Amino acid sequence: MDRLTIVKVGGKVVEHQESLNALLEQFKRISGNKILVHGGGSTATELAGKLGIETNMVEGRRITDHAMLEVVTMVYGGLVNKRIVAALQALNINAIGLTGADLDLMRSRKRTVAEIDYGFVGDIEDVNSRELRLLLGENIVPVIAPLTHDGKGQILNTNADTIASEVATELANYYNVYLFYCFEKKGVLVDPNDEKTIIYELSLPLFKQYQEEGVITTGMIPKLDNGFRAKMNGVKEVLITNTDNIATGKGTRLV
Amino acid sequence: MDRLTIVKVGGKVVEHQESLNALLEQFKRISGNKILVHGGGSTATELAGKLGIETNMVEGRRITDHAMLEVVTMVYGGLVNKRIVAALQALNINAIGLTGADLDLMRSRKRTVAEIDYGFVGDIEDVNSRELRLLLGENIVPVIAPLTHDGKGQILNTNADTIASEVATELANYYNVYLFYCFEKKGVLVDPNDEKTIIYELSLPLFKQYQEEGVITTGMIPKLDNGFRAKMNGVKEVLITNTDNIATGKGTRLV
Repeated sequence: MDRLTIVKVGGKVVEHQESLNALLEQFKRISGNKILVHGGGSTATELAGKLGIETNMVEGRRITDHAMLEVVTMVYGGLVNKRIVAALQALNINAIGLTGADLDLMRSRKRTVAEIDYGFVGDIEDVNSRELRLLLGENIVPVIAPLTHDGKGQILNTNADTIASEVATELANYYNVYLFYCFEKKGVLVDPNDEKTIIYELSLPLFKQYQEEGVITTGMIPKLDNGFRAKMNGVKEVLITNTDNIATGKGTRLV
Repeated sequence: MDRLTIVKVGGKVVEHQESLNALLEQFKRISGNKILVHGGGSTATELAGKLGIETNMVEGRRITDHAMLEVVTMVYGGLVNKRIVAALQALNINAIGLTGADLDLMRSRKRTVAEIDYGFVGDIEDVNSRELRLLLGENIVPVIAPLTHDGKGQILNTNADTIASEVATELANYYNVYLFYCFEKKGVLVDPNDEKTIIYELSLPLFKQYQEEGVITTGMIPKLDNGFRAKMNGVKEVLITNTDNIATGKGTRLV
């Protein structure tokens, strides 16, 4: 099977021109098929603020009422996505921006109200990779925004880490998939202020142990849950790393 | 050659759920290859207003400074485009949203300052239809937002009527192209308040005559200029019509 690298980058990296350019220069160095999945949360929060729309986060997840859904659709699907696509084209990478609605790529179901009503937030039910594989076969690089749809015309807000994991898992049926979660740190750290304490190999039991001991806390947990789910479902390698190490492959490897 | 229908719809039609649904129901009835090109000006103006960004139009064209470029990128590329794509998917039409940056579809040059500095406005220099034809061959329906790029990373605002004309002209090399400009009226009217005065066939000399006589005025002129340019460059049929008549093919035919 051919190699496919999926890089998920958080909002902080893609929302500033300088760090975005640095990322894309590294991304360009990856050979073979590749996909970029991006966030855009800070820009969404900023725009919402300017529009007088309050941002409410619960455990790192955005409460998405109708007004906030319009904001994230604009910011993720429009501003951030198209800026990345245009920047990749300038590097001679034939990029295409996609949400889950485009090509019916990712169908989701509106999260049913449990204790917390997240609003227009979708949990992925189906990844349809047929046309995505067609694009990859033409050397096209998909740039995926964290939006899905319910198949009935409704756009839904979906976590970018989860999208990366779900797309990676589906594509693992067709490629040797390498999934890179790229954030500000070199990897998962025992001491978040000391990059020398990086955990180079993280197994599921060790992850559970670190969670119990409070070494790995809230922010990293959903990302690692997503990473381990992908790893256990056929993704060849899952790496938590920073922009500089996309091409070197150094970071925290899930084992 | 296969038939390809390109429908350009203005902001007023796509920006309200009811008229959008009516449009898409008609659009669905078109058989064969099809492309939708949309505007979104009123939503852009509305969002700009909420953000305290002033809208300045000169001869129907939007002055696009940096802040306004962000607004149109969000609104055209995100909000309006993704809403249409999701609605088409709900009708079982496999739509994909595109700007000129995606797949390097439309390269433009920032308009050089003449008497008026339009800002980040791009005049199309090149339409690259290779991947677009690949998508059409897979029964995928492209939904094109009025944004282009300069190939150096800069998104530019480009008139949707012009995009429809340029894409139609390029694709006329490969398809029998039918280009429909769809707006609120049944067609070009001698008396704008009386739909019975519709001009069913409009030739270039008649268009010039009506312009001189002041029968056809500012709003319609760029649309008709674009339409005649397409007609003279290989597009099989150009029709100015309204939503109800997309499928019937009634309206003002350029001859």
